Amino acid sequence: MTDKHIISILAENKVGVLAHVAGMFASRGFNIESIAAGPTHEENLSRMTIVVRGDESVLEQVRKQLGKVIDVVKVTDFAGQDVVERDLTLIKVTAPPNKRGEIFDLTEAFRGKIVDIGARHVIIELSGPKQKIEAMIALLGPYGIKEIARAGRIALGRGSK
Amino acid sequence: MTDKHIISILAENKVGVLAHVAGMFASRGFNIESIAAGPTHEENLSRMTIVVRGDESVLEQVRKQLGKVIDVVKVTDFAGQDVVERDLTLIKVTAPPNKRGEIFDLTEAFRGKIVDIGARHVIIELSGPKQKIEAMIALLGPYGIKEIARAGRIALGRGSK
Repeated sequence: MTDKHIISILAENKVGVLAHVAGMFASRGFNIESIAAGPTHEENLSRMTIVVRGDESVLEQVRKQLGKVIDVVKVTDFAGQDVVERDLTLIKVTAPPNKRGEIFDLTEAFRGKIVDIGARHVIIELSGPKQKIEAMIALLGPYGIKEIARAGRIALGRGSK
Repeated sequence: MTDKHIISILAENKVGVLAHVAGMFASRGFNIESIAAGPTHEENLSRMTIVVRGDESVLEQVRKQLGKVIDVVKVTDFAGQDVVERDLTLIKVTAPPNKRGEIFDLTEAFRGKIVDIGARHVIIELSGPKQKIEAMIALLGPYGIKEIARAGRIALGRGSK
């Protein structure tokens, strides 16, 4: 089985923890599809959300190894759980004045935000589920996409845990 | 000087690249404040956006080393440049029925979105500049924050590059 797993890791915010965690996945041959890591509301703790695809039994070993890393506080695998998942993307698209209207309409329909306007481009901010973001990127393709910066997936479990 | 640097790295989407890059920062003693990595519109390429604080001269060495990594296509340091920066956060906050109204109003004022409602909690999605997100987290504090998942900063240069 090579299911998609969203793994959430709460860890001490120290030099080298990310390299250590990323190295554990790499050494087992897992390619990290996306990663998002940042501070939490608890000082000194950061949360990494990692999306990987791979063999369940090998991943189980990685999870166990992660649990033994001294700086790792908690590991949660959201596979099969009910979660809220979100992606964030900035898309820079070619937009001469006569195309702006169309692009603005598309952005509004997708509940995105225009965050920069230049003479021949705009930058659109879009958040939401992955499918929505990919649909928007596909629709913007014909205008000419210049650059995309995409945050890794973030996720939180639903329910009152 | 320990300025904040937003470093954008375009790299081949291969096993081990993230661990390699993260290891380079760690070996020079840099703590990565946030990281966001995900696919781009070009197949096989992913973009990592890394926020670090540290000594400019040491960071210059890291940038040079990164440029020599075979899987790294391009390294951009946005320090001092005009960029659009965005953060994304999911915040799970305690919200009994009699407090929901207040939390919904706050969410609307911050242009966030309610993405999950339970009997005693809500999950709020919020994107924008870092200061806005931190202001919202501070205002939600008194209600009781249960969990936060925060994507790393993403950034794109303004202008028609």
